[in-house]
Amino acid sequence: MASRSALMPVLRCVRRRMPALSARISVQSASVARRSFSSTGSTSFGRSSVCSVQYTSENYPEIQRDPRFSKVTEEHVQFFQDLLGSGSAVLESVTNDAGADDIEPCNTDWMKKYRGHCKLVLKPGSTEQVSKILKYCNDNMLAVVPQGGNTGLVGGSVPVFDEIVLNMSRMNQVRDFDEVSGVLVADAGVILEAADHYLAERGYIFPLDLGAKGSCHIGGNVACNAGGLRLLRYGSLHGNVLGIEAVLPDGTIVDDLFKLRKNNTGYDLKQLFIGSEGTIGVITGISIQCPQRPKAQNVAFFGLESFEQCQQAFRNAKSHLSEILSAFEMMDNSAHTLVQRVTGNKRPLESEYPFYCLVETSGSNSDHDSEKLQAFLEDVMEQGIVADGTLAENETQINSLWAWREGIAEALGHLGGVYKYDVSIPLKEMYQLVEDTRIRIKEAGLLGDSEEFPVIDVVGYGHMGDSNLHLNVSTRHFDKRVEKVLEPFVYQWIAERQGSISAEHGLGIAKKKYIGYTRSDNMIGLMKQIKKLYDPNGIMNPYKYI
Amino acid sequence: MASRSALMPVLRCVRRRMPALSARISVQSASVARRSFSSTGSTSFGRSSVCSVQYTSENYPEIQRDPRFSKVTEEHVQFFQDLLGSGSAVLESVTNDAGADDIEPCNTDWMKKYRGHCKLVLKPGSTEQVSKILKYCNDNMLAVVPQGGNTGLVGGSVPVFDEIVLNMSRMNQVRDFDEVSGVLVADAGVILEAADHYLAERGYIFPLDLGAKGSCHIGGNVACNAGGLRLLRYGSLHGNVLGIEAVLPDGTIVDDLFKLRKNNTGYDLKQLFIGSEGTIGVITGISIQCPQRPKAQNVAFFGLESFEQCQQAFRNAKSHLSEILSAFEMMDNSAHTLVQRVTGNKRPLESEYPFYCLVETSGSNSDHDSEKLQAFLEDVMEQGIVADGTLAENETQINSLWAWREGIAEALGHLGGVYKYDVSIPLKEMYQLVEDTRIRIKEAGLLGDSEEFPVIDVVGYGHMGDSNLHLNVSTRHFDKRVEKVLEPFVYQWIAERQGSISAEHGLGIAKKKYIGYTRSDNMIGLMKQIKKLYDPNGIMNPYKYI
Repeated sequence: MASRSALMPVLRCVRRRMPALSARISVQSASVARRSFSSTGSTSFGRSSVCSVQYTSENYPEIQRDPRFSKVTEEHVQFFQDLLGSGSAVLESVTNDAGADDIEPCNTDWMKKYRGHCKLVLKPGSTEQVSKILKYCNDNMLAVVPQGGNTGLVGGSVPVFDEIVLNMSRMNQVRDFDEVSGVLVADAGVILEAADHYLAERGYIFPLDLGAKGSCHIGGNVACNAGGLRLLRYGSLHGNVLGIEAVLPDGTIVDDLFKLRKNNTGYDLKQLFIGSEGTIGVITGISIQCPQRPKAQNVAFFGLESFEQCQQAFRNAKSHLSEILSAFEMMDNSAHTLVQRVTGNKRPLESEYPFYCLVETSGSNSDHDSEKLQAFLEDVMEQGIVADGTLAENETQINSLWAWREGIAEALGHLGGVYKYDVSIPLKEMYQLVEDTRIRIKEAGLLGDSEEFPVIDVVGYGHMGDSNLHLNVSTRHFDKRVEKVLEPFVYQWIAERQGSISAEHGLGIAKKKYIGYTRSDNMIGLMKQIKKLYDPNGIMNPYKYI
Repeated sequence: MASRSALMPVLRCVRRRMPALSARISVQSASVARRSFSSTGSTSFGRSSVCSVQYTSENYPEIQRDPRFSKVTEEHVQFFQDLLGSGSAVLESVTNDAGADDIEPCNTDWMKKYRGHCKLVLKPGSTEQVSKILKYCNDNMLAVVPQGGNTGLVGGSVPVFDEIVLNMSRMNQVRDFDEVSGVLVADAGVILEAADHYLAERGYIFPLDLGAKGSCHIGGNVACNAGGLRLLRYGSLHGNVLGIEAVLPDGTIVDDLFKLRKNNTGYDLKQLFIGSEGTIGVITGISIQCPQRPKAQNVAFFGLESFEQCQQAFRNAKSHLSEILSAFEMMDNSAHTLVQRVTGNKRPLESEYPFYCLVETSGSNSDHDSEKLQAFLEDVMEQGIVADGTLAENETQINSLWAWREGIAEALGHLGGVYKYDVSIPLKEMYQLVEDTRIRIKEAGLLGDSEEFPVIDVVGYGHMGDSNLHLNVSTRHFDKRVEKVLEPFVYQWIAERQGSISAEHGLGIAKKKYIGYTRSDNMIGLMKQIKKLYDPNGIMNPYKYI
């Protein structure tokens, strides 16, 4: 290992070649991106208003309302009002049309892609209330959609027909925190960012971070097994969640809020709820292992000439940065250019490159981390793996660089409809899907610069550290011809490479019928068994998942 | 942050106060400890021979053979011989008494505590064979005990009556390894140490390490959700295992060997198999995320005056060592003295202390890690948290220091029978259980220096980083009076503090009846539901678990 002084001449050279332009990038687009995930329906960012959103029942005419489910009556409403108290408890009911506007944010997703016909939203304030609600619904065959921050991408948290929405926003208290072990116990309805702020004050960090943190609920994160930006460093929720409190459709409380790291006493049933998308019960509380908040953070941003070089840079980052590598994100020039067009911000690098990578380190010692990062930079620059790059030198610059990555989804939404595919693919072929899709759409004559072409661009970005690609087809307007060219092509392509058609956003209604591209008939059969075991009446989040 | 040069005078001072005695400690006890976990029954280390081990059926007279199960007939044996081939496939059968010795290692656990009456051991060579075996057993009501390295502590991997042993040792091949992602796919019967050696050659490490690594199987590790020495750093198997291949009792193959980090397509059923102890199916293969092998490793060993100081040292270690802290182990002076008595090695510290801690760092940069460790040492020495300590300066010394921790279980076994409790307790009360137990046994007049007292000593050690205590009551011989004083006292004590009666070794037969001290009736009911769902005939590892 070379000493620090021996590295200095090289580092100066690296720095010369990497102008610190990031200071000039506004952080605005990051905060806009976060606002856009609001569940209040107030986001208008170039989109139609709530009322013009097409009903899911119209977009999916093949889905019929299950006639076994009861319709909500005044008697039902009376039961819920008696249980929860009128006012905040029952947000809206069939008996009161005056406040119909208030119910719509719970009926519609933030992308304005899915819209239900729900007439009753319940906001329980305790696990016992959730238990009584579900038991009553189960006994009376009333279908239920559990809803957290309503920030999903697959329509999982909004109703299709007249299901009752069980909104968890009133259960938003931290129950317990152990300053020595870092174990947090909290209600499901705590907003992720609020949980992280609470932890930050105590020197800890929530082991999950994602763009929707300002709106999404930690219970919803667990129900959807959210992955996010730093899975590479902190691991998955299956490893970090130590306990769950949940309610089954028959009202049984799954009281498994264990607070220690090790507990080998029987089947780890809580794992079934992680990623179950509200189909077997409602998560009301979680306990989670939180790591110490890193004292030092660094972000570097590169331009690269090929995806092969992105892979080389990733391998070098793993080797040099090892335990402090907390994110390795990739985006192509199409994605980058889009953000630039929408935000009007100056690009962080002077020239354009086919690919860009963002590398983040999180560690406990600023000097050590900088030294490791600089050794990495020196290596990738000297080997010609990276064409150009910039290093953030303070928190504002870190946020600015992240905005180029986090702002992509928002920028895409600004242009019109987006076909989004969040998929896992073995790393070496990860970007090939974007190229193959682009060719396919071009060959179908659907991509072009003028209004006659529905498709504006095909872009790729994602969490390279997790082999997780976001393939996005940006359109001027949703068009059935585009959909036909994309599906099942994309799913078949992934299945041939043993990838996953849903890396982190789940199945919901969007991917329900495509699960067979990732899971075998055996596995699907076993999953249906579990659904039937816990929810024999099928009242939990119907028409979705499997 | 002080610069490196500013720290130097203090570090020299720290070094002076910490004599590097570890070089003088023989590594012998570590290798002995590992040998002791052999499944061949060849370990005699002060113990009775296999044939004198009492049958579990005699020790647990309340357990009766389930009359629904068939007895193995010549026709059954013929089926298995036709399927597997005679010779290595069917190790021993009812029709051949000549080789009866060969079957005994599969009938008895390494502690010589549990012994079954099994007459047929099957060693399948493929997942398809496992499927055919289980389907046949299920159709013919033949009970089955899946067996890996047979290194457990709770009697989970040996039969009670005449169950057929399904030994996985022939399925021992690495199937695939991805050098970029670090994902290993391997048969369940690969020995942990062999998997780790394979990975070491490629710059990776298996994310689990434990004393029995030379014998235990990775499939068994997953089936028992093993925790081990470095869970603190690499996290649990629930987070690291990406996929599982398993066979259900009806022969269904759970083909879920996914190889990427993210896959949100339906219920994560593989999680049910992690920690299921062979009660719902047999794991035949796993895919697992392996981290990069650390380039630098350091070990420090301290003497401390109180358990309060152990906690302070742990808090300081988390703060100073953060991402490189890979183990924080605690042992009391009784445990330490015992190892010294059995091995005859010179203690690593000159004086005796009530407590000792072993701190390990694993990182990618030796200079950085040493600097962090020294800042930590400086802090705990200056604050008077640590009374004395020594730092290993090479791999031999690292192994020597670890031998003082890893050799405890072996040393205990050398003296006679040991009542072992592997439990999770909130950190601040963790050691109190040892003290309360010692008082209770003393008050019962069972502890003393001469032969008339059954108990030699009550010792405590464990994984402090995971709140995981190993309470061990060392006896001259097993004695029902001791057992009555210990149980259910220990379990009640843990239940009152919401700990776990089994932190990592599982339930097996030893803790089956005590699960209610950690799990609620609701949870136990839900677990029984799962058992019934997957194994309606109850043929898988009967008489155990729940």
